[in-house]
Amino acid sequence: METKSSSNSVTIIHNAMIVTMDPESRVFKNGGIVIEQDKIKAIGQSSDILSQFSSLAHNLQIIDLHGHILLPGFINTHVHTSQQLGRGIADDVDLMTWLHHRIWPYESNMTEDDSYLSTLLCGIELIHSGVTCFAEAGGQYVSGMARAVEKLGLRACLTESIMDTGEGLPTSWAMRTADDCIQSQMELYEKHNNTADGRIRVWFGIRQIMNASDRLLLETRNMAQELKTGIHMHVAEIPYENQFVKAHTVWVDDTEIGFLSRAGVKVSHCPASAMRMLGFAPIREMLESGICVSLGTDGAPSNNRMSIVDEMYLASLINKGREVYAKGTTDPTALPAETILKMGTINGAKTVLWDNEIGSLETGKKADITVVHPNSWSMVPIHDCISSLVYSMRTENVVSVMCNGKWIMKDKKILNVNEGEVLLAAKEASSKILKRAGISIPSRMNVL
Amino acid sequence: METKSSSNSVTIIHNAMIVTMDPESRVFKNGGIVIEQDKIKAIGQSSDILSQFSSLAHNLQIIDLHGHILLPGFINTHVHTSQQLGRGIADDVDLMTWLHHRIWPYESNMTEDDSYLSTLLCGIELIHSGVTCFAEAGGQYVSGMARAVEKLGLRACLTESIMDTGEGLPTSWAMRTADDCIQSQMELYEKHNNTADGRIRVWFGIRQIMNASDRLLLETRNMAQELKTGIHMHVAEIPYENQFVKAHTVWVDDTEIGFLSRAGVKVSHCPASAMRMLGFAPIREMLESGICVSLGTDGAPSNNRMSIVDEMYLASLINKGREVYAKGTTDPTALPAETILKMGTINGAKTVLWDNEIGSLETGKKADITVVHPNSWSMVPIHDCISSLVYSMRTENVVSVMCNGKWIMKDKKILNVNEGEVLLAAKEASSKILKRAGISIPSRMNVL
Repeated sequence: METKSSSNSVTIIHNAMIVTMDPESRVFKNGGIVIEQDKIKAIGQSSDILSQFSSLAHNLQIIDLHGHILLPGFINTHVHTSQQLGRGIADDVDLMTWLHHRIWPYESNMTEDDSYLSTLLCGIELIHSGVTCFAEAGGQYVSGMARAVEKLGLRACLTESIMDTGEGLPTSWAMRTADDCIQSQMELYEKHNNTADGRIRVWFGIRQIMNASDRLLLETRNMAQELKTGIHMHVAEIPYENQFVKAHTVWVDDTEIGFLSRAGVKVSHCPASAMRMLGFAPIREMLESGICVSLGTDGAPSNNRMSIVDEMYLASLINKGREVYAKGTTDPTALPAETILKMGTINGAKTVLWDNEIGSLETGKKADITVVHPNSWSMVPIHDCISSLVYSMRTENVVSVMCNGKWIMKDKKILNVNEGEVLLAAKEASSKILKRAGISIPSRMNVL
Repeated sequence: METKSSSNSVTIIHNAMIVTMDPESRVFKNGGIVIEQDKIKAIGQSSDILSQFSSLAHNLQIIDLHGHILLPGFINTHVHTSQQLGRGIADDVDLMTWLHHRIWPYESNMTEDDSYLSTLLCGIELIHSGVTCFAEAGGQYVSGMARAVEKLGLRACLTESIMDTGEGLPTSWAMRTADDCIQSQMELYEKHNNTADGRIRVWFGIRQIMNASDRLLLETRNMAQELKTGIHMHVAEIPYENQFVKAHTVWVDDTEIGFLSRAGVKVSHCPASAMRMLGFAPIREMLESGICVSLGTDGAPSNNRMSIVDEMYLASLINKGREVYAKGTTDPTALPAETILKMGTINGAKTVLWDNEIGSLETGKKADITVVHPNSWSMVPIHDCISSLVYSMRTENVVSVMCNGKWIMKDKKILNVNEGEVLLAAKEASSKILKRAGISIPSRMNVL
């Protein structure tokens, strides 16, 4: 449906409930939005938008949304896209088994093509859940990820998985020096940063503090500053880290929350993964101290659902429940729906250092948009639109997604790749990796 | 597609992965099942089933499931179906506001028709999530619920909301005596128990201990014993109850867990609702002491998703996470997937005192069946079928549901009611109740 003429094509979407997430928290009950090329040209009441713009452009497409809800695309600020092919390989096992006997063998046996396919499969799930931008939390082949992101039409900050020290690493990883790590990331930055119409950025990575030398940490900081790009790092996931070094985000105390706040560190809260493997992060306290907290799914073997829609629901429940340990009862008023929705959108944009262009629907910003169909058994009746989006909406209520001014899903159909073909190829590649890595999953029941 | 001839119609479903949940935990990788009238006539390997049964019956239908997964219908052991029209009326408010200013005014302003419609709407969501049987946790009009359950084709244990004392009750409720309560339930039992081809049972109800006189409690016990039916009761939801009386299930200590276990009390764990409003129930400890724990959604205003599929995912995450407070770290091995799947099926059947006929796929049991389509972006790749059903499956992977030998959903289409008409009527009725009850929901954002 995209018209590709040399003159500027314009799309008007009207008759939608538009939740802008702008600084004034504006919601247009019957709103309209004008999209020219990759940008939002105007936003307002449907009637105003139609009367002002519907006769102006040559290549004009007008879309009536019949009351559907229009939101900024969700932003997943922590996801290991290369782990998608490893979904289900490490359920119900302890953390050391998870890492040493399942995830490291799996990741170290991937090829660049596996990484491409894994990111394609993950991207399909991300798009279905309304995500338009993600921050890769670290994987083996940034080149594979970049190919997939370019093809899918998504926006992403890509990061290589970086370790230069630590116990029990697979041989190929243990050989890397700090200089190798910096060199490799410089090359990836040169090659991929600001490619795919500006949808791809390259960040520096630190897998975790136990796997990084002091030299690597300092050089990473210097290079990121010089190139004006971000650093994606796992911090304070498990109590052991607190013995190793004082700096963490699941396991932080009040003083440390102050440090993070003053340093402008952005936190990606991954409720499902944290509940399962790590613990309860003090999210309410972080938000109160002014820290920007956003939402991530983490990788498929830690979750296994890869949907920011589910993470919004979870973030609310878990953080209301967690208050029981501070106050003696849960607090159903903690982290209300409007806060959660911010975490999934504008806070996500701030976390990926891209809020000048994405995270809210405002004139001049990029057209990254998610369309929700609310008139279904999963959401009716709607008395409180914002809370319905957080508590009742399911991933499957997301029907269409636009990134950078282009539809990448329409009526639940992914547009830029063949979903069926990716599923087939992914199943095959996934089995082969497990075979190469010597991973076998014990049976839980009496299979005949 | 149902043939209604006088001779026995037989359906063979084959080429399915069948997770039986029987006492031997049998899983048939390529299984078949034979259904005659409302019962399972045989179950086994596809090839055996086909060769043994495919030439026997006159009215024979053979269905190839192409590798889809076949499970016992899920059982939701705690759901307020009358609250479905009140979804979203009490999000992010404290418990007293929730009860006194939202839920009680809402429920006390419902008509019998509202209750019918609310149960229809709730039933549609339950069927979409693979539920074939539910236990109503208490509502105003059992007759309305019964009409809806009969029409939908579901199986249910219905319970009136019963209170004969307590502070702050709406006037119409405050007038009821213990005798009124018992009398009303006796009449409902006479009228509705064992109706709808045996799909409906009527239980006795106690809303909560603070709203029940001693006389009501004792009479309820006596009548339930005499009629050999169940009692559905809210116990130990909030710390205040522990000051009021010693008997509770979210807020229980080890001694009390022992009492519950010896008394054969069955517990319905509602993870979403508990996280939001109540607290962390000691589920692992209850299971270890031999208590039968099953899963419930609770009502729409406490959840708001009404899906046992989501509750399975949550039950696992929340109970793994809760270990952090006992052990210092979460325990990813706590409540493994096979335990969770039992809670959603066979333990559910035990909880509703119906495990002689439902809860597992076994010869002679009722044909209550859920069909899952696993070949989607939300579940691929599958390395561990049982954990995929608990951690990756979404509500929308449920495609078809059979209850009592009859399909009630095929290919995501609800068969016995017009879904669109129910949605429309529900929205209208819901707005009218709020108007009558004088409930208005404040806006969270700047709505224009």
